[in-house]
Formats: sequence, structure tokens, C-alpha cells
Amino acid sequence: MQSKLIVQKYGGSSVGDVGRIERVCDRIISYAKKGNKLAVVVSAMGDTTDELIDLARKINPDPEEREMDMLISTGEQISSALLAMAIHKRGYEAISFTGSQVGIITDKYHTKAKILKIETDRIKKELAAGKIVIVAGFQGKSIKSEITTLGRGGSDLSAVALAVALSADMCEIYTDVEGIYTADPRIIKNAKKLDYITFDEMLELAARGAQVMQTRAIEVGKKFNMPIYVRSSFSKKEGTIIMDKRPHIEESVVRGVALTENEAKITICDVPDKPGIAARIFNDLAKQNVNIDMIVQNVSHKKMTDISFTVSKDTVARTLKISKKIADTIGAGGIISDEAIAKVSVVGVGMKSQSGVAARCFSCLAKHKINIEMISTSEISISCVVKKELGKEALKVLHKEFGLDKIKE
Amino acid sequence: MQSKLIVQKYGGSSVGDVGRIERVCDRIISYAKKGNKLAVVVSAMGDTTDELIDLARKINPDPEEREMDMLISTGEQISSALLAMAIHKRGYEAISFTGSQVGIITDKYHTKAKILKIETDRIKKELAAGKIVIVAGFQGKSIKSEITTLGRGGSDLSAVALAVALSADMCEIYTDVEGIYTADPRIIKNAKKLDYITFDEMLELAARGAQVMQTRAIEVGKKFNMPIYVRSSFSKKEGTIIMDKRPHIEESVVRGVALTENEAKITICDVPDKPGIAARIFNDLAKQNVNIDMIVQNVSHKKMTDISFTVSKDTVARTLKISKKIADTIGAGGIISDEAIAKVSVVGVGMKSQSGVAARCFSCLAKHKINIEMISTSEISISCVVKKELGKEALKVLHKEFGLDKIKE
Repeated sequence: MQSKLIVQKYGGSSVGDVGRIERVCDRIISYAKKGNKLAVVVSAMGDTTDELIDLARKINPDPEEREMDMLISTGEQISSALLAMAIHKRGYEAISFTGSQVGIITDKYHTKAKILKIETDRIKKELAAGKIVIVAGFQGKSIKSEITTLGRGGSDLSAVALAVALSADMCEIYTDVEGIYTADPRIIKNAKKLDYITFDEMLELAARGAQVMQTRAIEVGKKFNMPIYVRSSFSKKEGTIIMDKRPHIEESVVRGVALTENEAKITICDVPDKPGIAARIFNDLAKQNVNIDMIVQNVSHKKMTDISFTVSKDTVARTLKISKKIADTIGAGGIISDEAIAKVSVVGVGMKSQSGVAARCFSCLAKHKINIEMISTSEISISCVVKKELGKEALKVLHKEFGLDKIKE
Repeated sequence: MQSKLIVQKYGGSSVGDVGRIERVCDRIISYAKKGNKLAVVVSAMGDTTDELIDLARKINPDPEEREMDMLISTGEQISSALLAMAIHKRGYEAISFTGSQVGIITDKYHTKAKILKIETDRIKKELAAGKIVIVAGFQGKSIKSEITTLGRGGSDLSAVALAVALSADMCEIYTDVEGIYTADPRIIKNAKKLDYITFDEMLELAARGAQVMQTRAIEVGKKFNMPIYVRSSFSKKEGTIIMDKRPHIEESVVRGVALTENEAKITICDVPDKPGIAARIFNDLAKQNVNIDMIVQNVSHKKMTDISFTVSKDTVARTLKISKKIADTIGAGGIISDEAIAKVSVVGVGMKSQSGVAARCFSCLAKHKINIEMISTSEISISCVVKKELGKEALKVLHKEFGLDKIKE
């Protein structure tokens, strides 16, 4: 067997305690024994990051982001040093690095830094010397030489970016699920694990509620065409490869369904139907860093219209405050917010070119007496907002409708 | 009042929880309000360092020292970020730095690195900009750009070295005791707090069992004549200034007594009484990094002699192993070890020039029927090894004998 350069990433639950670190260590060594070179990215142990954030908020409810990065970057430094020690005990050579030491250079935006480049000299030297390199995930060093972090799920990004920078043969993401499923297996009992999924489909599923991997990491994988292998650190089972194109030609169009209950619907009522009003609303919201998901503007026969959009629930208070100000300025009628909604999405490349997917989706929901409140479509997905209490049922009937419970790969 | 540049150090118990961090913060701000510039060195919160060491040993009983430094340096990074956040909440500017970021450059010896120099550009810039600078204690960056730590109590060293490098007006060490006492107040109820003590006396007391400050930090203070003010972070009371010379001329000679129960006595019996044998024994032990404290060689009328010395209890097993090898090579009779010993010491500058201190010490112990097993003297101290169960009693009678319970300053 040919020796490969493999980047692996182990999430927080995979290194949650001493026993789990030992198991991760066993797996790493099984790869090293076959002559592979390994760069391993680790997250902080279990809930360490959340605990550090809680501690910070007890001291200062609105901590400065630079200090937050100083604080929370320690979690990954701890787990990477411990993993190196575990590997040493088994007689293999290993060395741990912080993001800063290993040359992950980011922009200066603390707690949400973007990777600008990775200086690979040091890591290549250690790999060439036969060492297993352990990298603290989620972090880097800014162009101003400060410690930065990459945002939630940032260790995924560290791993994919490192795989790209090293031209690795493979990037493996070890997590607490066995791969990518046609739907969340906690809700849909007969959801099927996929062998393959495209970057675009995965991005849609992630944006529509699937929480397996960080979106930015998938985007980097897509941009540099670095296949990402998602699998469980708790089993030996095969996972799912996220890649550019599906390997099989004949395959069902719809690849997965997703549900999110984390959004709220905001409606600005009786907006004067003049050009530029919508642009103004969403510009103002964007300026205040409110991320909008779906936007629907109802056609009106009067000179008034309703504009509805969805936002993440944790930004509702802020969004309402900003929206009220906007509504006053433009002379709109009022604001309504509704948090009792769920969004179901159907995702698959080639959906647009196959007629009838949307229609089939809508009539399936209608047949089961599930009313659709908002619709939005993209090149590879259809999303519908329904009442919150009907979300899971909607997911179930759509999963069945598109034969996802019978997928064989 | 003239504005000063002050270096403060807060120990682990002083920043042990959120409430204590708040109190430290109050004190720092009370200094800042008076227009002083502040560089503050912090230790890890409470028992963090010990907990990290335990975690490491669970994974690898003999962890590599480089990885140990990666691991344990996180404790101070956490406390310094939290302290900066606490200061921000009160509306003052502050910035935290790791030892590496702030330019504490050390040699390459992990877990016991020595400070080579401190690059003060960054810290001076931030102080000039009106910020309170928080520095993670106990750590630095090696000449090989690795994270290093400075050994137990290393935050004291960080603080004193920083005060020297910045030519600070004062170096304050905040701890959980109120200063330096004539004896350990937990043992001697009427022990008196000293207003002043010399570097030499403090070094002797530290070497003889007083655990208030790290010895290396006192040495650096002495070398660069940087006065060190030791006081409690839990009270407003005045502490003790460690300085070059005592400010008062007329003063009692003996300044303190100390007790340690951490040593064991090793005796190599029936050593051939030839030149060079002692040198050989202690060279071999030094090569294996065994620190010897007292050494006593009994004069013998035969061609044989007994050589006794004391070592720290945690090195007894190693010392015995090495000593047995040496005993075999040189044809000595055997090895005896005794862990049931205590060492009491009487410390004070000018002791040698005042006749009778040693005699008074010995007869005091004799009067109280305390047998002396070993004696060693230095320029400013006399130490006696006694049976362990008599140690505290010996400390008490010596404290009284030299009038330390009646010192007025």
C-alpha cells in the first residue's frame, strides 16, 4: 500500500476524556503503522470552550473579542498537548503546535477570523522527520501577531485548509455521527447514510439545518476541490465522502432533507411598494450584522406590500429593534414576528433540471394537510416554512416521498 | 503624588475564582486611579496547574517536557485574559499577553527554563498608550521559539525579571500571607511579621523551608537590587519589603527561624578515608541532578568515615539507587536512609560577626532535651537536623530564645 499524507480532524466529543483520547490515539497509530504521514487537528475536549465562554461572561457580559480569543484558544492547546503525550506513550514520535506556531495566518477579525494563508515550512519539516504533527484547531495568528479564533466549528476549517496547504491526499473529519444522512437520524428513523455527496449539496444541507460540519470548511473544500471524508471516531464504519461530483451517474436527484427550528419569521407589514425600499431594508440589516435567510415579498394589488424574512432566533430582539426603526422611516404599517416556525428543505444537485420536484414537494405537503407559509428555492434546494409543530411530520413525509428511505449505494 | 511604574504579581489563590479576580481588579484600578502605570503578572487560577499535570499523568506517566509546557502554560493564559476582561468592565484599558507574546525569552530547557532577556518594546508601547498590561506568569518563549515554563513559583520570577527589565519603581508580590514572618505563623502562634528583610536573609529562609517566594526570583531581585514588596491580596495591611540592606542599624541579629520536614538523611557508611572520595560521590550525584542540601562528614579515628547528607524526600529513591552504585565502586560499607528528620534553621545577617549565636542555639536545644543529629552553618544561618517529632518544638524554643516573639519594627 502506498504511503499517503493524511489530515485528520477529531472533534470535541471525540477527545472528551482520557479514554477517548486513548482511542483517537489508537486510530492515529493504525494509520501511522501503514507508513502514512499524519497531520492531526483537534478540537477542545468536550464542553471546554463553552465552559470558558461561561466563565468569561460571569466576569464581563460583553468581553472584548481579542481577550476572548486569548481565553478560548487554550482549549485546543490543552487537547493537542495531551494527544501528543498519548502518542509518545505508545512509542511514536509526535509534536503539538498551536495555530500560531504552525503558521495559520488569519485576518485581524477576532472570534471570526478568516485564514489568509498557511506557512507550512515547520509542519513539513516535522512530517519529513517522521513525526505525527498535532495541530490545535480553531485558531491562528493574525497579521498583527495576535491569537485569533475561526468561529464555531473552526477546527473543521483548520483541517480542510491545512489539507489544501499541504496538498494532502485525504482530509478526514472524525465526529460523533457516522456520516451524512438523507435526514437527521434522530428524527427520521430510517434515514440512510450516503456514501457520497457533492460539496454543493452538503452546503445546502448545512445551510438548511444539518449540523455535521462547518459551512466555511465545506466551502474551502469546494474551492480547492479537496475531498472531505466525514466519519465517526467511535466506530470503524465507512462514512461519507464530500466531493466535487458524484461518482455514479444514475442516482436519485434528491439527496437529503433537512429541518431547522432555529429561525423566526419577521414580517414588515404595509410597506410602500416603491423601488429601492427592499434594498434599503436589507442593507440596513446587513450593516448591523443581521444574517437573513429566506426573503419573501408578497405581490400586492394595492400600493402596499408585506415583506417577510427569516433570521436566526438569537438575533430576533436585535432584528426587531432595527426593523422598527426602518419601518418608521419608510412609513410601513408595523412589524410582526413569529418564532413558532420550522423550515424543511429538500436538497439535491440536478433538481432544477428535473421538472416536477417542486410540485411534488408542495403536493406531498398539501396531501398531509401541512400548510406552507413561505417558499424559497435555489439551484439545488427547495425550502418551505411551516408551523413549528408540523416540522418533523413535514420532514418525514418528504423523506418518504423522494424515496430516501430506500436509497442503496 | 508622583506617578510610578509598578509591577504587581498575583498568585494562584489570589485569582482562584471569579470573586477573587474581581477583588484583584479593584486593587489594580485603585493604583491606576492614582496615575500609576501597571504591569500585572498573574498565576493560573487556584489549582489549575496541578489539575493539568494530573490530567497529563493519567495519559502518560512520563510526559515529554516540551508537551508539558504546551499544556500547563494555558493556565496563566486563561487567568490573564479573564483579568483583562474584568478591568475592561470597569471602563479601564487593559491588554493581556502570553509570556511568548510579551517577549520573555528563555533558554531551551522545558519546565525549568531560565530567562535570558525580556524584549520590552511591546509592553512599553502598551503602557505608553495608557493600558494596564496583564502578563501570563510562569512562561516564556525559548530561543527555539517554543513555549517554555519557568518551574514551580515561576510567576514570581516573571514579575521580578519584568520589573528589572522595565526599571520599575516597585515590584509587589501579592500572595495569601501578609508578609515575611519570624517563623511560620501556622506553627509559631506569636511569630511577628517583619517590615524589612535582606535578600540574603530571605534566600536563607527560603532555602531552609520558608515557602513564601520562589528562590530564583529573590536571587534576581538581589542581583539587580530590585526591592520586592511581599503582601497579602486579601487585606490592606502592610507587608514586608525584601531589600539590599536593612534600613535600621540597631536591630536584632536573628531575623527568623524556619522548619522543613521535606528532607531525608542519607548516610554512606564506612567510606575509605582517602582524598577525592567525597568529591567523587557528590560529583556523581550532581551529574544525576540530585540536589544535596547539608553535607556532614564524621571525623574518624580509623581509616573509615561516614558521610551523611540530606536530600529532598521526593528524590530519596533515586539517590539511594545512585548511592548504592557509588558505595559498591568505592568499597563503602553500606547505605542508611532516614526520612523521620526535621531541619530547623536560624537566619540573620551579621550572625557570624556576633559571637555566641551558634552556642546559644545549641545550648537552647540541649536545655530542651532536643538531640542534634547534623549541623551546618553558613555566613548567615545555622541549621540543625533533629528527630522529626521534635522539629516543631525546636522551632518554638529557638523562636523564643532569640526574642523573635518580641520584635518591634
